[in-house]
Amino acid sequence: MNGKLFVIGIGPGDPELLTLKAVRILERVPTLCVPKGREEGTSLALSIVRQAVNIDGTDIIEAHFPMRKTRNHGSEKQQPQGDAQLVQKWESTAEEIISRLQQGTDVAFITLGDPAIYSTFFYLHDVLLQRLPGVAIEFVPGITSVTAAAARAGISLGLGDENIAILPATYAGDIRTVLAGFDTVVLMKVHSVFKDIFPVLKELHLEDNCVYVARAGMPDERIVFDIGAITADDLDYFSILIVRTRRPHARP
Amino acid sequence: MNGKLFVIGIGPGDPELLTLKAVRILERVPTLCVPKGREEGTSLALSIVRQAVNIDGTDIIEAHFPMRKTRNHGSEKQQPQGDAQLVQKWESTAEEIISRLQQGTDVAFITLGDPAIYSTFFYLHDVLLQRLPGVAIEFVPGITSVTAAAARAGISLGLGDENIAILPATYAGDIRTVLAGFDTVVLMKVHSVFKDIFPVLKELHLEDNCVYVARAGMPDERIVFDIGAITADDLDYFSILIVRTRRPHARP
Repeated sequence: MNGKLFVIGIGPGDPELLTLKAVRILERVPTLCVPKGREEGTSLALSIVRQAVNIDGTDIIEAHFPMRKTRNHGSEKQQPQGDAQLVQKWESTAEEIISRLQQGTDVAFITLGDPAIYSTFFYLHDVLLQRLPGVAIEFVPGITSVTAAAARAGISLGLGDENIAILPATYAGDIRTVLAGFDTVVLMKVHSVFKDIFPVLKELHLEDNCVYVARAGMPDERIVFDIGAITADDLDYFSILIVRTRRPHARP
Repeated sequence: MNGKLFVIGIGPGDPELLTLKAVRILERVPTLCVPKGREEGTSLALSIVRQAVNIDGTDIIEAHFPMRKTRNHGSEKQQPQGDAQLVQKWESTAEEIISRLQQGTDVAFITLGDPAIYSTFFYLHDVLLQRLPGVAIEFVPGITSVTAAAARAGISLGLGDENIAILPATYAGDIRTVLAGFDTVVLMKVHSVFKDIFPVLKELHLEDNCVYVARAGMPDERIVFDIGAITADDLDYFSILIVRTRRPHARP
């Protein structure tokens, strides 16, 4: 009997934003798979879990996911790699997970935020389904950085008949069309494209309808309504810009 | 010294999806404000909290929020009311909250899902800010029904450079334009418009790229990939349709 794979969203950074379900599973699962996508060495996801759950003695699989190439290489320290290398990394991580599952051991893959919102887990997903058909996978949703940023800024993302667009920093389409068609536009990991986006917002007279949130809920969080005052110091990998196109945020 | 108002997202229905932070605050706050928007009488939000937290002895303010008029009155049992009546209800609820806060009592307003995602709390927000300027409000994000539905269906909402649109059932714009411009389109509370949306999806050959999720994580949850087979019985107020426009969901 194979083990079960749990894919657990651990929220955006504040350990108190783990769910009861995430804690229950993390307390008992014998193996954790921890993505390490950035160069820093330490895993932010693992340090968040450690603050909420005692995982001493838990077997840890470290999954080094190199970053994908992105459109823009601003302040982000990325090591763009070819797709072949990426696929090889995912495959070797998948093999590590599969070998534990085949021994009957449950594994929890932890992911910042929520698994469905831009989590690298889904690159692994296809490999797992191919290599171990019928593998039991349970997804545990997490608090997204999007709603955490809204909560910290004290704003609504949508109300009544309003619509919401979520765009990644690598979005290649026309931002003006999206701003024209949506009440709220959320730009994820905006740090690398902020200098390109700001002039557009200014031109459309939307610069007062924005809030920038970096590292929501973390000790060094930044919340900036006056986005014209954002400096290079404010720009952070974990950054979100929320634009209200029809009416400005009610500032607290 | 006035009390503090906590606005707490309690997730979509599974009591285990409350966060540690929500539980900690709900365990100690002396007054809960509980929205009751529908006719059923019992408050779903309150019953979810009761399953995770002992709130015996907590003072409960029941806030009866009549539903707003929506574009479509399909299977939803709504009592549309004029805006004046709505505003009056919000104002009387705001007064109840304010009187507790002015006595120095903390109050927690609980909301299904997340406060930033279509929560009626924000109708109350403006009234509170006007009546009690400088009122201390802390928002606690919750698991949204959107990511809970994706988790239960085992799918991603966005990966890499993909974009995501979230539309309320009352969306008045052109759904075809949104389907053409976004990788993932999430239709909230789709039950009342499903019969209008399905022919459009079929015409665009997208009917195999959808998943319908009702009451995600609740005992009577429904997950339907073959949306042509959805019957009136499947349609529920707490329903979401997730459409992938470029490539179908990897079905589990």
